[in-house]
Amino acid sequence: MRVTVWGEGFLDVESLGDDPGPLNYAGYVGEARRIYPEDVHEAVATALREGLGESATVRTATLADPGLGLGEEELARTDVLLWWSHVKHDLVPDDVVERLWQRVRDGMGLIVLHAGMESKIFRRLMGTSCLIGGWRQSDDWEAVWTVAPAHPIADGVPGVFTIPAEEAYAEFFDIPTPDELVFVSSFRGGEIFRSGCCFTRGNGRIFYFRPGHESHPTYHLPEVRRVLANATRWAARTADPTTSVRPVDARDPDAVSRLEMREGWVRDPASRRPAP
Amino acid sequence: MRVTVWGEGFLDVESLGDDPGPLNYAGYVGEARRIYPEDVHEAVATALREGLGESATVRTATLADPGLGLGEEELARTDVLLWWSHVKHDLVPDDVVERLWQRVRDGMGLIVLHAGMESKIFRRLMGTSCLIGGWRQSDDWEAVWTVAPAHPIADGVPGVFTIPAEEAYAEFFDIPTPDELVFVSSFRGGEIFRSGCCFTRGNGRIFYFRPGHESHPTYHLPEVRRVLANATRWAARTADPTTSVRPVDARDPDAVSRLEMREGWVRDPASRRPAP
Amino acid sequence: MRVTVWGEGFLDVESLGDDPGPLNYAGYVGEARRIYPEDVHEAVATALREGLGESATVRTATLADPGLGLGEEELARTDVLLWWSHVKHDLVPDDVVERLWQRVRDGMGLIVLHAGMESKIFRRLMGTSCLIGGWRQSDDWEAVWTVAPAHPIADGVPGVFTIPAEEAYAEFFDIPTPDELVFVSSFRGGEIFRSGCCFTRGNGRIFYFRPGHESHPTYHLPEVRRVLANATRWAARTADPTTSVRPVDARDPDAVSRLEMREGWVRDPASRRPAP
Amino acid sequence: MRVTVWGEGFLDVESLGDDPGPLNYAGYVGEARRIYPEDVHEAVATALREGLGESATVRTATLADPGLGLGEEELARTDVLLWWSHVKHDLVPDDVVERLWQRVRDGMGLIVLHAGMESKIFRRLMGTSCLIGGWRQSDDWEAVWTVAPAHPIADGVPGVFTIPAEEAYAEFFDIPTPDELVFVSSFRGGEIFRSGCCFTRGNGRIFYFRPGHESHPTYHLPEVRRVLANATRWAARTADPTTSVRPVDARDPDAVSRLEMREGWVRDPASRRPAP
Repeated sequence: MRVTVWGEGFLDVESLGDDPGPLNYAGYVGEARRIYPEDVHEAVATALREGLGESATVRTATLADPGLGLGEEELARTDVLLWWSHVKHDLVPDDVVERLWQRVRDGMGLIVLHAGMESKIFRRLMGTSCLIGGWRQSDDWEAVWTVAPAHPIADGVPGVFTIPAEEAYAEFFDIPTPDELVFVSSFRGGEIFRSGCCFTRGNGRIFYFRPGHESHPTYHLPEVRRVLANATRWAARTADPTTSVRPVDARDPDAVSRLEMREGWVRDPASRRPAP
Repeated sequence: MRVTVWGEGFLDVESLGDDPGPLNYAGYVGEARRIYPEDVHEAVATALREGLGESATVRTATLADPGLGLGEEELARTDVLLWWSHVKHDLVPDDVVERLWQRVRDGMGLIVLHAGMESKIFRRLMGTSCLIGGWRQSDDWEAVWTVAPAHPIADGVPGVFTIPAEEAYAEFFDIPTPDELVFVSSFRGGEIFRSGCCFTRGNGRIFYFRPGHESHPTYHLPEVRRVLANATRWAARTADPTTSVRPVDARDPDAVSRLEMREGWVRDPASRRPAP
Repeated sequence: MRVTVWGEGFLDVESLGDDPGPLNYAGYVGEARRIYPEDVHEAVATALREGLGESATVRTATLADPGLGLGEEELARTDVLLWWSHVKHDLVPDDVVERLWQRVRDGMGLIVLHAGMESKIFRRLMGTSCLIGGWRQSDDWEAVWTVAPAHPIADGVPGVFTIPAEEAYAEFFDIPTPDELVFVSSFRGGEIFRSGCCFTRGNGRIFYFRPGHESHPTYHLPEVRRVLANATRWAARTADPTTSVRPVDARDPDAVSRLEMREGWVRDPASRRPAP
Repeated sequence: MRVTVWGEGFLDVESLGDDPGPLNYAGYVGEARRIYPEDVHEAVATALREGLGESATVRTATLADPGLGLGEEELARTDVLLWWSHVKHDLVPDDVVERLWQRVRDGMGLIVLHAGMESKIFRRLMGTSCLIGGWRQSDDWEAVWTVAPAHPIADGVPGVFTIPAEEAYAEFFDIPTPDELVFVSSFRGGEIFRSGCCFTRGNGRIFYFRPGHESHPTYHLPEVRRVLANATRWAARTADPTTSVRPVDARDPDAVSRLEMREGWVRDPASRRPAP
């Protein structure tokens, strides 16, 4: 299993340029640097190396890397991509997003973390705004409840566990209905949020996981690290796809002949669709 | 209930301009003109006026209309939009698509018919390519099977009915998993297709229904007309939404203060989210 | 629409016989009598008469009625059945449960309220234990969040509303994955619960709604009454089913001949399945 | 991974006793004996040993074994149970069914094959009749289409493959909506059937797979064997459950005290629910 953890490089304040960032940005960066000295994405990568052991090789990539570290070749060699972004969503070029969109539908797993819900790639795949009902900066607890104990992502995770301090999110989370809802979180203020959501797009499996605000040590918690490992395993295909979701030009007679099932697919094996 | 049936104006060959159209275009138009003298969208509108009676007012709009007949005011007065397009998807301007995308998520129902799966608006909402595995031009039958007999869209529809002649589609239909799968079709060649699929996006309900090739009199069939009426009723909200899916500028302190739940949602009624 | 509201007759302490009831039973009855002088089921029926107006006729029935008021004829004339039970689940005879099971699958809607999750009929239809992770007697709030704003049952219901005082339930709620999850509740103690869940079984639509502890005036709240009315409308079929889920004796050649599709379903209209 | 393949012992005609069996029984047995000399369940077990290799130990059990080979200890040591039955469903004792029901919800995976849909255990878990719309004895093809290419059970399976000869089944298949629909089959007669369906009940994962009529060599086909192996891997948990779905006697104060969350789950760590 080949894993890439992509982070916008939250600690890399220069890449934000003249953009002042959202409210409280400077405060966040200071805290984040203290908790994740090598940045959030490196902490996630470390958690995965521990959790997946020899079954996986884990690399990291950021906004600052050439081609964002997400070029054609690099993506072709990635089975699962974990994505953490918070303030620099707009700095991801559209052509990279397009490449990611195709790659997910061709079979690459995608794990979207925390504020990554607002990333271009997640919004593209969801078809919705992915906005939330509200948030609350706090050092209050988040209680993560498992509502699908049979789900592989819930394997070995307590039926309910507490994250001592997290930023609170509230519904309505503008996503399509998850294919599978694994976790729902509650917060001290009464807020709830669907915090562990599975989707499929084409050949690819997607998991959104809410916890992971940069100024809280969430990714150091064992239960959270367990979820990350489970999710990465779940999202990785064990075989190449056998279904193509690539377009064919309907105006090209040759291309059409490959898709048009002349006599009915079943009666004549020779008229069967060619392998993708 | 206020219904709009939008068709690209399949019989309006001038609007295609220099584009030669797909293979067999001329043949299709000739057949379509014979079966649907006033074009497909008018036939659908007629079916709805009969099926919905006094409970609905039905208007039509096409590509040739000013603003495509889908301006802000017109959409604000539309509870359900039915969409039929086949060869002119690209002629729908992006700003219209954006307006439709917002309107669906604000509560307008959307029924997408047949090749409308390739429309910009459907692809935008789905987040996938919406391509199919293959097609077969034929005068063979389509058998439409109900797999969700409890669904409102299946009310009064036979458990299985035949469309005597239809173009065949085959899976894999690159859509997200439908929230509800109502119909699955089979064809003489062994093809199958998930032909009746429900989705929700924000406050809006969406139904995709496969049958409706322009050179077959599908929309004249009673079972098909029943499905169209059921779907339109199902997609129409009976009350204004109470949930907003509109963005707020995170850099504007005033806007943020409305979303940021300072003390938590429940403890202080004064901090409850304002009405959308 | 013909609606039946069935309650075990919580105030009818005699029907419990020698069974001492669960802990705190006497206390509950006293409070319940004060809040619902005519018992919970009558309050629910009143709420529905107000909410549905002329579109529905609403009757009540209890454990003490002949045949529980749920005989063949009465069920045949019931489009939606609302069920409230808490301590007398075991006093419902198995033959009544069997009749209810068949009637739901033949198209009667079923709304199960609060502790009715432990009823024989709900457990039969779910195939699981329907047990919960825990409960907490309290006068604390329940915050009911809408996670499916496009769902008809959420029409006109605020995106989130508070029930000032309710008994708290906590996950894991041992039900199958709901077909549609409409509401999720949070409680002051951090508990969460999937409080509005839709299912279908055969031709029937089922909705489980958590709030409604007998010693709290929950059914007097406008938002709760709105949900009850929405759910009842949603659960009522508008046309007789066209699909049969009745068994045929495989050893009876005549019966078999009606199900066995000799030439295939489509090729010979004469061999089409007979109407149910 | 410890796998048990249970078959009723289709070739074991004595165990049917005086019951004449369904129509054509004698013919089926003769054909089955020729195709599966050691009976269907042994063929399935062989397929799994090949497909799973060293990652699994596979045993078989039948109706004729003591306790059906499904005693408490044997089930405790079974991670995934595959079930093939056709005519002897009624000969499975109710106490065995109860044990299976609890074991699945405690985490054992269950794969139900072909006519096993009519087994007591499958019906118990589904809460429906599991009857089908009709069948057709034939030597015609079955085309198995993948409608969820991202699903682990579809890994390495062609997007569509043909079984040269199978008995045809037709919808409406009276099951709850599958959590995940992986395969849909078509037949020469125009019939369709949801042939690969996933469910979860408590901690257990269930997969129903239609192909496998005893008088056809279906289980010798590579694609079918691939599905069996994929499904078995999918259904096997990798960690013990952390959620209990066992009942507690509400009249026992000690038991109640373990479930009743006095101060709320989160506020006081000492009041956290004990491990199941």
